[in-house]
Amino acid sequence: MKARVYVSMKKTVLDPQGQTIQHALVGLGHKSIAEVRQGKFFEIELQGNAGRDECAKEIEQIARDVLANPVMEDYRVEMID
Amino acid sequence: MKARVYVSMKKTVLDPQGQTIQHALVGLGHKSIAEVRQGKFFEIELQGNAGRDECAKEIEQIARDVLANPVMEDYRVEMID
Repeated sequence: MKARVYVSMKKTVLDPQGQTIQHALVGLGHKSIAEVRQGKFFEIELQGNAGRDECAKEIEQIARDVLANPVMEDYRVEMID
Repeated sequence: MKARVYVSMKKTVLDPQGQTIQHALVGLGHKSIAEVRQGKFFEIELQGNAGRDECAKEIEQIARDVLANPVMEDYRVEMID
């Protein structure tokens, strides 16, 4: 079973990396780019014969406890096949 | 108009950061985690009254030329609303 976890800064938290990319793109002539926010994602492969619900629960726990910092970041879990 | 660009290492390229996370997760008791690969994504907001196709073309060009390194990385563009 496969899962993806997407982690991004909360909307209320400044994203200087995204701002730098936005400035660079405008400088390169892409004048229509109003905002860029950067995030990261994790593609996770699970083995064993746990069910989908059990896997989803484990991934949710991993996302909350390990991959994201809930104080500053939002996360989203997506189960694939 | 909004778009997301997902950038990840090609399957044939080693991802040491993902491997480290996988080892850490197994060490934390998540024995079923077989593989982790890390990637990044960019949430891009476009302004102006360009059409959807025109925006998609611009984002595709930005992804290929600026956000991803096509030698080592794959990218995927997703247009939102």
